[in-house]
Amino acid sequence: MSELINNYQSGYSLGQSFYTNDDIYQKEIENIFLKHWIFVGHASQIPEHGDFFLFEFDQESIIITRTKTGEINALLNVCRHRGSHICLEKKGNTKSLICPYHAWSYNLDGKLLAARNMNDDFDKSANGLHRVHLELIGGLIFISLAEKPLSLKSMQADLKDTFDLFGFDKMKLIKQNTYHIRANWKLAVENYQECYHCTPSHREYSEIHAAALPPAKRNQHLEAYLKTKTNAVRTRSCDCYFDLANEGEEGYQYSREPLLPGMKSGTAGGIAASRLLGNITDYDGAASDLMIGPLSFFLIYDDHMVGYRFMPLSIAKCVCDIFWFVHEAAEEGNDYDLKELTWLWDVTTQADEEIVANNQKGVNSHFYRPGKLSEMEGFQQHFLNWYLKVLKP
Amino acid sequence: MSELINNYQSGYSLGQSFYTNDDIYQKEIENIFLKHWIFVGHASQIPEHGDFFLFEFDQESIIITRTKTGEINALLNVCRHRGSHICLEKKGNTKSLICPYHAWSYNLDGKLLAARNMNDDFDKSANGLHRVHLELIGGLIFISLAEKPLSLKSMQADLKDTFDLFGFDKMKLIKQNTYHIRANWKLAVENYQECYHCTPSHREYSEIHAAALPPAKRNQHLEAYLKTKTNAVRTRSCDCYFDLANEGEEGYQYSREPLLPGMKSGTAGGIAASRLLGNITDYDGAASDLMIGPLSFFLIYDDHMVGYRFMPLSIAKCVCDIFWFVHEAAEEGNDYDLKELTWLWDVTTQADEEIVANNQKGVNSHFYRPGKLSEMEGFQQHFLNWYLKVLKP
Amino acid sequence: MSELINNYQSGYSLGQSFYTNDDIYQKEIENIFLKHWIFVGHASQIPEHGDFFLFEFDQESIIITRTKTGEINALLNVCRHRGSHICLEKKGNTKSLICPYHAWSYNLDGKLLAARNMNDDFDKSANGLHRVHLELIGGLIFISLAEKPLSLKSMQADLKDTFDLFGFDKMKLIKQNTYHIRANWKLAVENYQECYHCTPSHREYSEIHAAALPPAKRNQHLEAYLKTKTNAVRTRSCDCYFDLANEGEEGYQYSREPLLPGMKSGTAGGIAASRLLGNITDYDGAASDLMIGPLSFFLIYDDHMVGYRFMPLSIAKCVCDIFWFVHEAAEEGNDYDLKELTWLWDVTTQADEEIVANNQKGVNSHFYRPGKLSEMEGFQQHFLNWYLKVLKP
Repeated sequence: MSELINNYQSGYSLGQSFYTNDDIYQKEIENIFLKHWIFVGHASQIPEHGDFFLFEFDQESIIITRTKTGEINALLNVCRHRGSHICLEKKGNTKSLICPYHAWSYNLDGKLLAARNMNDDFDKSANGLHRVHLELIGGLIFISLAEKPLSLKSMQADLKDTFDLFGFDKMKLIKQNTYHIRANWKLAVENYQECYHCTPSHREYSEIHAAALPPAKRNQHLEAYLKTKTNAVRTRSCDCYFDLANEGEEGYQYSREPLLPGMKSGTAGGIAASRLLGNITDYDGAASDLMIGPLSFFLIYDDHMVGYRFMPLSIAKCVCDIFWFVHEAAEEGNDYDLKELTWLWDVTTQADEEIVANNQKGVNSHFYRPGKLSEMEGFQQHFLNWYLKVLKP
Repeated sequence: MSELINNYQSGYSLGQSFYTNDDIYQKEIENIFLKHWIFVGHASQIPEHGDFFLFEFDQESIIITRTKTGEINALLNVCRHRGSHICLEKKGNTKSLICPYHAWSYNLDGKLLAARNMNDDFDKSANGLHRVHLELIGGLIFISLAEKPLSLKSMQADLKDTFDLFGFDKMKLIKQNTYHIRANWKLAVENYQECYHCTPSHREYSEIHAAALPPAKRNQHLEAYLKTKTNAVRTRSCDCYFDLANEGEEGYQYSREPLLPGMKSGTAGGIAASRLLGNITDYDGAASDLMIGPLSFFLIYDDHMVGYRFMPLSIAKCVCDIFWFVHEAAEEGNDYDLKELTWLWDVTTQADEEIVANNQKGVNSHFYRPGKLSEMEGFQQHFLNWYLKVLKP
Repeated sequence: MSELINNYQSGYSLGQSFYTNDDIYQKEIENIFLKHWIFVGHASQIPEHGDFFLFEFDQESIIITRTKTGEINALLNVCRHRGSHICLEKKGNTKSLICPYHAWSYNLDGKLLAARNMNDDFDKSANGLHRVHLELIGGLIFISLAEKPLSLKSMQADLKDTFDLFGFDKMKLIKQNTYHIRANWKLAVENYQECYHCTPSHREYSEIHAAALPPAKRNQHLEAYLKTKTNAVRTRSCDCYFDLANEGEEGYQYSREPLLPGMKSGTAGGIAASRLLGNITDYDGAASDLMIGPLSFFLIYDDHMVGYRFMPLSIAKCVCDIFWFVHEAAEEGNDYDLKELTWLWDVTTQADEEIVANNQKGVNSHFYRPGKLSEMEGFQQHFLNWYLKVLKP
């Protein structure tokens, strides 16, 4: 693996093995998915005590639940007795977590309450469910499966004003869609990170966002936009992502990207989608890119937010989950139309399902060779640099 | 593998690799499935000369057939020419075994009768079908794929009276069901071996069998039952199973387990299911557990017998076959109702299909760790001890 | 692998590993499928400029297209940027090849015409599509994915008269069928190479072709036929196939095989199927076997030709494609009935789908051992000799 990593030539796409070798995939699971922070959902999904939902990927299943004290917890869905899954429903409400196999029961903190017919030397306190690190950003729930997670402190301090501005603690999740992609997860993440493909592949997106334009043109729009700026928190840029993250800290990124003239939001025709988020008081013709950890991305329009998460099911299959958020006071029918609001990223991600699967097919060929990246694939280059670094033994 | 085996801690479940590593699975095929005795069916399935049925698992297919002389034979379903399967139907009747590919034909003893257009130096006598060791216990057919099979002599001698009592040579098979389980075969076998899960998972079983009770309560029932005993053959116990088997001999086990008060048989309400087996003259409120070899189990009620066999299809899939037997003179409609008689173990095994698949899901997690076994999982501990012993290089 | 190869005993079928070991399969892809000449289709499939069709196997996809100058080209369907498949439709017509991902566009020669937003140092001339060697035999299109392909010169010179006689440049493709076979590709190729199985498995074929008869009888037919010969080009035999090929040259074979008395063509009852091919002026009661490269076979009746190609999808799955050709002037309805003309090899190959899958099942058994070949499997022996030679490291 060291040789493969060292052979990588900057400015090019990755070699085939990174997309097809199962040993590399196992290493990715250990070094990335079991180590980094992952966005799993929103507090509004589990408003009541005992509410829970499952977050699943590869071979893992995690229970996200709200306890009696109102706290949100993440627990491994693996019984400490013989390992059975405990929660079999994808979501629900329960007073306690009772394994359906031998009825070991745990409270919503994961503490083992009862285990029948165990010998006297059995230590219940040592047999609680494995607890997973969890952090809230407003209502957004992040987990880390690491024993000692990467620090989120800089990110929380750095972006506090941003979270406040957009009212991260006053949002609600109104829709989640899952897109199954027949490709290695990296091809899906790389696809999300570059807008070089937007013009040929995403007409709908390209009619709204300046990011689809060639760099020179896009920069003209950005400069024009920044001249009009009234809110430094909204228009700032913050680059601690991927290989730019500090040692021991989780990576993050924030920037503001202009929409095309006349566009207010990510909808057909760029029309307003819902009531303005948080403390936003006007449409400024732009949207924010936010990234927290390597797998979770958010696109913040002035009136709604879209979340994207990429997780593997196996070396050759992954899922993209898309989450749509609005102001918690927004009402369907009055403030927003669900179909209109979700249209752009549904149609865009459906297209990406095909695009990325076709990319994998060609990468599988004996004749695939890493190709030269364009100047519009710079963000992806940061991903590749970081990826090869974290993969190193 | 030696390290994995040595790392096993007694009193705990097995580590993950034993359920997910394909090298271990291949070793299991060699050391267990190609070596130990396996129950494959009943003489009543092939009453006439030329009758046959196939027994299949993993990559193997074996023809069980009755020859002209009335003998029952087991033959590998692999042509000695280019290896084609010979019998393509799961059961049937045939005068000889003719390979559908090039028409090499064998008699029902496996002897090569004809092979067209072979050179003169071709030795037909050296090209018969591979014969498989076969042993009958009453009408129950057992095979061993080993070159030199483990001895069944002690078992046959030890249990002769038991077989006579229950009339093993006067039974007929009235139903066979196959249950596909999405889990490693060991999780299915372990599930069968412990009644710790009966109370939470099998209400139907637990309303009939005392084995579902906690040990102290179950022992009270057993003691009470043994006091009433009138038949030492029926109530004996015989522990030569798994790691308790003698060197060079196949393992076996017999014991009598009480039913709950008032219960006569394994039916809804514990009512009688059919006419009494063999020389049994009364219902004594109990049932017998019989195990012959590591994969074949029988539950003998006074009026019918249920057989269970666990075989792998691949590392992550197995099948449980269930066989229902009654007295050969019993008549459907008069003596028994097929639906009533098969109900308990059909509903119980359908539940186990789910239970065991959920167990596998959790065992696949990176966070699964071997868990402490309860005092109701002692039989399973013997299985684990034996398993690790036979796996050793 | 060397040990496996050296252990092979001539006169016997191959050992199990050759049909089940994935390392061996990867070696086969490299040494056989990426090296030898493969028949991919017919010029009549792409008559117009810009017409294309895809040829696909294992992980490869190749675009066969006709350029502005009327030339036929083969190009790897793998974008030089990030590797996406470019043509997504199996066939069609296009002015240029534009990658659907980032819109890199290539002309039909594979030359990179345009790549947006690349840095100034990007060399377009070095980033054309990978071109594949292509050779036409009449209208038959052959490709080689080798860097330096095996020579076809001897074959072309040797068989020129034969191609002229049967009018290889005056044929048209009227039908192509794909048969999916659940077996390793070698079992399918071996099956095609011997007629030992014809009598038991292919009644339809055996009623028309003398090749299904035992060698002595078949030779009588051949001798009788050769006595009547009026055309030395039609009746010649040419043995440069498999291990008989010259070093550095692709193997090929031609011979004439008698039909049964009264049979004119490969149809029910042996009746004429279409107008006579090329310069053929009479039915002579025979058909020609032609092989070019190790995977492509042709059966030339006097009035139509059938092509067969075997390609792997994975170690345990392959496809047989069958192509039916007639004189380019033949008209459906008047000169031939499509159903009558395609009947024999459709029914025969459907049978082979089953036969070969059953062969694989038995070969998978732990008890499979290489078996002795018959005197009717001599051609297959040449295949095996060649196969083991090309596999050698």
